[in-house]
Amino acid sequence: MRATVLVRPKQGILDPQGEAVESSLRKLGFDVADARVGRVVDLEVDAATPEEARASVERMCEQLLANPLIESYAIEVAAQ
Amino acid sequence: MRATVLVRPKQGILDPQGEAVESSLRKLGFDVADARVGRVVDLEVDAATPEEARASVERMCEQLLANPLIESYAIEVAAQ
Repeated sequence: MRATVLVRPKQGILDPQGEAVESSLRKLGFDVADARVGRVVDLEVDAATPEEARASVERMCEQLLANPLIESYAIEVAAQ
Repeated sequence: MRATVLVRPKQGILDPQGEAVESSLRKLGFDVADARVGRVVDLEVDAATPEEARASVERMCEQLLANPLIESYAIEVAAQ
């Protein structure tokens, strides 16, 4: 089952990569604000149901994919 | 206007970060395959309409946010 995890820096957490992106975009002439950079992880998960896949990916986030102190995550499981 | 860009390594392009994630998840006991890691960029774009915002973010992707040789991108503009 395909799953996608979006891992983002939490609000209030410094995001130097986002700041660099925002400053570069402004230098290129784009009118942007509030740029934040995170990670997207696409996975194939072995699970019988979407619910089971989501629970499994939730454990992956807690154990490896995200740092809960500074990052939040969102999980999408592809509908079958 | 809020916009989100997902930048992913193209199919066939080596993704060492994805391989590291997959191997670590397997060592933790998860049954996963085909892990790929990309970036998510959240932005506030100054634009009058969602169409204008999307066109602007498309230019940002071409000029800075993605490397079209090895990465593909998807743009989501928040409905107003």
